[in-house]
Amino acid sequence: MTKTVQVQLGPRSYEIRIGAGALAQESEWIVANLKPSHVLIVADRSVVALADPLQRKLTAAHVRCDLSVVPSGETSKSVAALERLWQAFQTAGADRQSVVVAVGGGVVGDLAGFAAATYMRGLRFVQIPTTLLAQVDSSVGGKTGINLAAGKNLVGAFWQPTSVCIDTDSLKTLPKREFVSGLAEVVKYGVIGDAALFARLESYADALLQRESEVLAEVIADCCQAKATVVEQDEFEQTGLRASLNYGHTFAHAFERVYGYGQLLHGEAVAMGMACAARLAEQLGMWSNDDSQRQEQLLRRLGLPVWLTPTDLDEILAAMTKDKKAAHGRLKFVLPTRLGHVELVEGIDMQRVKDVLRSAMTEG
Amino acid sequence: MTKTVQVQLGPRSYEIRIGAGALAQESEWIVANLKPSHVLIVADRSVVALADPLQRKLTAAHVRCDLSVVPSGETSKSVAALERLWQAFQTAGADRQSVVVAVGGGVVGDLAGFAAATYMRGLRFVQIPTTLLAQVDSSVGGKTGINLAAGKNLVGAFWQPTSVCIDTDSLKTLPKREFVSGLAEVVKYGVIGDAALFARLESYADALLQRESEVLAEVIADCCQAKATVVEQDEFEQTGLRASLNYGHTFAHAFERVYGYGQLLHGEAVAMGMACAARLAEQLGMWSNDDSQRQEQLLRRLGLPVWLTPTDLDEILAAMTKDKKAAHGRLKFVLPTRLGHVELVEGIDMQRVKDVLRSAMTEG
Repeated sequence: MTKTVQVQLGPRSYEIRIGAGALAQESEWIVANLKPSHVLIVADRSVVALADPLQRKLTAAHVRCDLSVVPSGETSKSVAALERLWQAFQTAGADRQSVVVAVGGGVVGDLAGFAAATYMRGLRFVQIPTTLLAQVDSSVGGKTGINLAAGKNLVGAFWQPTSVCIDTDSLKTLPKREFVSGLAEVVKYGVIGDAALFARLESYADALLQRESEVLAEVIADCCQAKATVVEQDEFEQTGLRASLNYGHTFAHAFERVYGYGQLLHGEAVAMGMACAARLAEQLGMWSNDDSQRQEQLLRRLGLPVWLTPTDLDEILAAMTKDKKAAHGRLKFVLPTRLGHVELVEGIDMQRVKDVLRSAMTEG
Repeated sequence: MTKTVQVQLGPRSYEIRIGAGALAQESEWIVANLKPSHVLIVADRSVVALADPLQRKLTAAHVRCDLSVVPSGETSKSVAALERLWQAFQTAGADRQSVVVAVGGGVVGDLAGFAAATYMRGLRFVQIPTTLLAQVDSSVGGKTGINLAAGKNLVGAFWQPTSVCIDTDSLKTLPKREFVSGLAEVVKYGVIGDAALFARLESYADALLQRESEVLAEVIADCCQAKATVVEQDEFEQTGLRASLNYGHTFAHAFERVYGYGQLLHGEAVAMGMACAARLAEQLGMWSNDDSQRQEQLLRRLGLPVWLTPTDLDEILAAMTKDKKAAHGRLKFVLPTRLGHVELVEGIDMQRVKDVLRSAMTEG
């Protein structure tokens, strides 16, 4: 059974198709709905096996099809990799009726999406996210981009996909640590906007860890819908509404920087960040110890870290104030008031933040 | 007297201010209207003298201001130059409230505009075009971009400026050949959509060549308005309406490629292209010999070329079929039916095109 989420952005809309085996139908969908002159598949090296059958089917359907393979890992979000992709599009004879199809995790989605946004001032773009994190996070929102040496995602564009295909089967072979990391963003959607989803996650925890297809499809659809509801109201990050999606992220970005991007996965950092945000909200009297405990219990059950390895506190604080979203060096925190609701809070005493970080280190 | 043209694109609108001395008021306008945290001026090396006072005034108004100088010429529309600019923005500590200000011709406008479109997924962008071509062409339309080795403008974005400032005084020091080249696009606006403008250009020809400020401001405002009217109805080049702006350009792009980008200026190629398109339309019985003659007379009076230096005809034909706008190798021509009206014509016998090119060579 394929589930569908419709994302409506101004006058444009697109469809997310979610289910076990969804990828097997994707070539037909592309040919019938997009009538491309040409398809450019950009695949992460680790999932070329998923891209190959797609290429074969498109070719069998008489659609000219080229495949660019991108090395796995964050280093592919570089200017050099972007330029290689632009050149590959040119060599392949891409024109304005070409369609770019990204197969892989967030790295390939961000890179291929940005190349699609900018080649000939914009080609259509189909996303086939193959990691849980990319499925629940990058498949909605239209953020594409690359890193500069000086910082992550410094360059990019808002470029919405034409459609998204999420095959839960692609999660079967995902390394356990990476799968679990993606669950952190899933929990996030429950806390920031959907108490019922949070409660379902509590009862689905074991089934999720078993990667049961039906449960995964239901939960991923809920997450995509939750994100779509936010993005539909604030596509270009102008009203502040979209900031709610950054719950746990002010901490998380600093953790990734200090503990090392390779060492700590993004979702792990987000879990740690949510745990810290929860403690901070509790300290400020904004939300109950009960709710805070429920969040921590769920994160732990899913195998996510909620404590910090001891390190220099001031280094973490410094990294937090350097974040791209810290306007003029002033920190903003997205903090929960109850399960299903968060608020943007400014002007928090840094000593409180430091205390929270210290307690998250000593209790680990 | 400053003239103003308002460009309305969907929910957004921006203002083009045109007049002698307009640049002197620009810093005040930017400070009062955009309240930037920071200004990044990107200037063509040849007009740094115009950028310097702007930087001084912004600094005096307590706006942090950085200047990046870009070498003159098409080679600056490269991936390397783009990356240098992104890095300069980062070094300057640009944030989402920064404003990018481009001072120069089309090259700097296209490059800085694309950097603005993509840095942090989009910074506000003020254009101060200093060549006639950039003033009447690139200041409306939102096309930004760079070249790849394999082709011009292969990479870019639609990114509308926040405002445009056109100082007719900046044309006083423009080399004559470059100024005259810009007049080709001016004549184009008359032919494609405004017979009254065409008639005014016939009576203003001498004043234009004298670069009289009042006449320049009036004519530039008319051209910007003409382009805005088209772009407002087809911002993303989807309906085909915007194609009318390519009158003369199917030929012109091929001429630039064959005769050499450095050798032939863009406006010169456009003038030659319009002369060829006129002959083609005449041959097809689409428009009168009278109108065709009026166009040729005006182009000649303004000092623009309407004939071709003898070269290999097949080379020109081959370059025409390679053009980015030639979908699937099929050529489209924008051809006039009367002064002030053009139509998009497909499926023209290539032998006719060859005959026209041959006649444009032998009559020169």
